[in-house]
Amino acid sequence: MYSNNDQFKERRIRAVKEDVRKGGSELSRSALEDLLDYAEACDVADTNELKSELLDLAMQMQLARPSMLVLWNILQRWIERMSGMPMGDLAEARQFAAAQARDLATSSVQAVKKITQQVSPQIVPGSIIMVHSYSTTVMQILESIEGIECKVIMTESRPGIEGRRMARTLSELKIPTTYITEAQIGNFIYKADLVLMGADSVLVDGSVINKAGTYLMALAAREVRVPFWVVAESYKHSSRTVSETELEEMEADELQLPSIDFVTPRNVYFDVTPAELVSAWVDENGYRTSYSKPSEPMPAGLLKET
Amino acid sequence: MYSNNDQFKERRIRAVKEDVRKGGSELSRSALEDLLDYAEACDVADTNELKSELLDLAMQMQLARPSMLVLWNILQRWIERMSGMPMGDLAEARQFAAAQARDLATSSVQAVKKITQQVSPQIVPGSIIMVHSYSTTVMQILESIEGIECKVIMTESRPGIEGRRMARTLSELKIPTTYITEAQIGNFIYKADLVLMGADSVLVDGSVINKAGTYLMALAAREVRVPFWVVAESYKHSSRTVSETELEEMEADELQLPSIDFVTPRNVYFDVTPAELVSAWVDENGYRTSYSKPSEPMPAGLLKET
Repeated sequence: MYSNNDQFKERRIRAVKEDVRKGGSELSRSALEDLLDYAEACDVADTNELKSELLDLAMQMQLARPSMLVLWNILQRWIERMSGMPMGDLAEARQFAAAQARDLATSSVQAVKKITQQVSPQIVPGSIIMVHSYSTTVMQILESIEGIECKVIMTESRPGIEGRRMARTLSELKIPTTYITEAQIGNFIYKADLVLMGADSVLVDGSVINKAGTYLMALAAREVRVPFWVVAESYKHSSRTVSETELEEMEADELQLPSIDFVTPRNVYFDVTPAELVSAWVDENGYRTSYSKPSEPMPAGLLKET
Repeated sequence: MYSNNDQFKERRIRAVKEDVRKGGSELSRSALEDLLDYAEACDVADTNELKSELLDLAMQMQLARPSMLVLWNILQRWIERMSGMPMGDLAEARQFAAAQARDLATSSVQAVKKITQQVSPQIVPGSIIMVHSYSTTVMQILESIEGIECKVIMTESRPGIEGRRMARTLSELKIPTTYITEAQIGNFIYKADLVLMGADSVLVDGSVINKAGTYLMALAAREVRVPFWVVAESYKHSSRTVSETELEEMEADELQLPSIDFVTPRNVYFDVTPAELVSAWVDENGYRTSYSKPSEPMPAGLLKET
């Protein structure tokens, strides 16, 4: 039993908020693990209190990262399932809540596996694959194509430098990798045969919300006709439009700019890639090469005013 | 008199090689100052030795930064003028060489002034101007429009972080400035009314060689129809084509990536922006809004092989 429910919740919510290194799928699965732990061990008197504690934690984790759609969707699915919780016996209720979290985590892992099974056979041996930021889905695909002598070109992903983690993982896979700044994307894109991009979310019109810089890579890829594939499980699909989307902004301290009068650093972590720049979307159910609705232009209100 | 000519030359050549923070015009003018100093004070016995020493320094400075075209062109002009050096009297010869350097530096300063005089009146009061890297020409334009309430959006310019110097100068001018990573260019470009871009060189077809990231900003500007103006004195105009151009690459250490097996960091400092992405080129002689020859595609051999 946790002696202090609030302390546990606070710690887990802060972790969700601050873990800007993890991709969406990974963070969602760790949030499900938190719910599983809390279901099994939080200090409550009865099933009503349990349900209320669990829903509180789930909802607060949702709100901790408003632009991380997959987190929202998976937790929402779990919250919906909580309406079926058996309310007679506390142990049984705990078991039910934990089992639902386990089941959703498994289905998310399965989804990524199915994406990998679809994408891997399409990759021509010897290809040069360009990637950006850290994506567990992209990493699993790269892991699955070991031995077909592909190379990778990757970005450092300022300011979070998720690129280092990506580089270390690629190194373990012994994949020859070129590591560049975002500014060099235009210099290297024409060497690539394929861009493999994870996503934070795929909007209703097929636009992709992902780490800032994704849009620039998509623009550069189109110029040299390099296919741009977005790999994202269906939990990342949203019914939202671009204008209903808020792009998450982090502390500007991360840019390490000393304080200068009249100068305001900004640290928007995500950007929007319109559907027309995407060659294919892949989720666990298959491929999609177009969206019927035309992609919306970037609305003026998407960022806070400068 | 310099007691040791070689030491002076070596120091100045190294400075030219290593000063990757300075823009092309600025670096060229400081190279001319070095020639002026050396003309006045190098330790030689006669005019023949003087000429040989001076040409040696000038040519070694040219070779120190092969992709910095303006440096090459200005020093080439100076070298050509040395054929008119009076060879009778040493003091007179020194004076001649120094005067030529002074004259070329002045004409470069004048060129930038003329560019400023042309561009400034075109800028609508209250405009938001987007810039990238450090350019003295762009800075002079921004200085000249003080009081018309413009704002600036600028990039940090990894890995050299020339952005900090730009930010400090803009702060002195009290211009409200937004400072972003290169990755956020796509998030902010649609707020801009105009991109003002310096150049390292303008090739024969109008393509622009400039700090890496310039091409991405140009692509993003075209998407949202923000005019993209290149401001570059005519010393930066080249008769070379894209395929005759080598993009300067700096030490990859600057990326501060720890050594990781199979992972090679790359640090290409420049990129190529094709002419069709440029709305206008401005030099001291006027505006140009198109080049007759179609722009060349990026040839595969432009970068060293990965």
